[in-house]
Amino acid sequence: MKALIVHAHSESDSFVAAMRDVAVATLTAQGAEIAQSDLYAMGFNPVLSPADFGSRKNADHLTYALEQRANYDAGTLAPDIVAEIEKVLAADLIVFTFPVFWFSVPAILKGWIDRVFISGPFYGGRRVYGAGGLKGKKALAAFSLGGREHMFGPGSIHGELETGMLRHFLQGALGYVGFDVLEPFVAWHAPYVTHDARVAMLEALGGHVARWENLPALPMPDLTKFDDSFAPK
Amino acid sequence: MKALIVHAHSESDSFVAAMRDVAVATLTAQGAEIAQSDLYAMGFNPVLSPADFGSRKNADHLTYALEQRANYDAGTLAPDIVAEIEKVLAADLIVFTFPVFWFSVPAILKGWIDRVFISGPFYGGRRVYGAGGLKGKKALAAFSLGGREHMFGPGSIHGELETGMLRHFLQGALGYVGFDVLEPFVAWHAPYVTHDARVAMLEALGGHVARWENLPALPMPDLTKFDDSFAPK
Repeated sequence: MKALIVHAHSESDSFVAAMRDVAVATLTAQGAEIAQSDLYAMGFNPVLSPADFGSRKNADHLTYALEQRANYDAGTLAPDIVAEIEKVLAADLIVFTFPVFWFSVPAILKGWIDRVFISGPFYGGRRVYGAGGLKGKKALAAFSLGGREHMFGPGSIHGELETGMLRHFLQGALGYVGFDVLEPFVAWHAPYVTHDARVAMLEALGGHVARWENLPALPMPDLTKFDDSFAPK
Repeated sequence: MKALIVHAHSESDSFVAAMRDVAVATLTAQGAEIAQSDLYAMGFNPVLSPADFGSRKNADHLTYALEQRANYDAGTLAPDIVAEIEKVLAADLIVFTFPVFWFSVPAILKGWIDRVFISGPFYGGRRVYGAGGLKGKKALAAFSLGGREHMFGPGSIHGELETGMLRHFLQGALGYVGFDVLEPFVAWHAPYVTHDARVAMLEALGGHVARWENLPALPMPDLTKFDDSFAPK
């Protein structure tokens, strides 16, 4: 089994770094071969731009998705993007460890998606959701959150977490390209709880990650219910 | 009236740049004083890190929100962040022009929020939503989208747009800090429509922006319905 850990926190002594370490240790103990993308440590550039392309299919006007596909095929996509694509394509499981900022992923992780989830191998036309390019792979998000559990869900102040605030990431990015998006692990109220509570959360995370093959996946749209233009049948 | 335009597209000949130009022209014709943050042109750094702080309240362990507040008060927050904060605090209306990437904002704009929406002046404790620091200001998002209108809404393949996929941005970032979040302008299927259709969208955008004082605001959580811990009463 091959796993990729994508980690997005600047501080090596952070709770999120400890979450990453637990994920690595748990999967290593299961015999997994682990690759890592520590985005801050790598100095990963999150800003997509024309500089990502060593050649241009259309030199006059930039259509980013078109150039992604053409440059990937031509071998002229920026090497830092290609390296990440190869890690993703090699993995059976990707674990994301990050702090939630503004009900979303940190910019450095958003930009990893913007640049790495390329048209062609990852998605295209009707190759989305259950027909996405990464079908058969699993994705597990493990994140810290300042808020408390009662602030999310039906009737709560912020509304649903998985299908509301984080819908753009869990469904719109991970589900869209075909991942089985496993039930996420949430470290609630992480900056404000006791040391003992944080230790308990890390233990729970270890158990969660260890069950990766049996964790339920979040429901995604069923393509058979939509026509060729993605209108409901 | 003072307006700030926050723009996030790398290409000066893009449709989104034309959207920005329409917003500027419309508000200028109304006599507004316009400030602009063209994030790509500025080379804005979207990656928050300890380098944002010229002093440290806690040198041993980074709590980003705590240091934002302390460094802002001490005058030691990074100058590129302070410049953006001052533009926001001076504005009556902020217009965001960007392409939707992965059902969210581009990483460069996500990082502008991560770094600029600081604890203290923007929010803190129970100073969120209707009690947020930016209460009284209006925010208008105008964005292009690859998808079509029928792909969003109840029963659609991607679900709701404003309250679903873009909830993290419209409610979780803009509404959270107290903006009246105006009905957004969506340029549907922008890369794939005819030139005439794009011209018509720009005209419609001009009319939308011109009505900024009268556009309906999206509903936000009513703080009177939640207790001091934000649990429903």
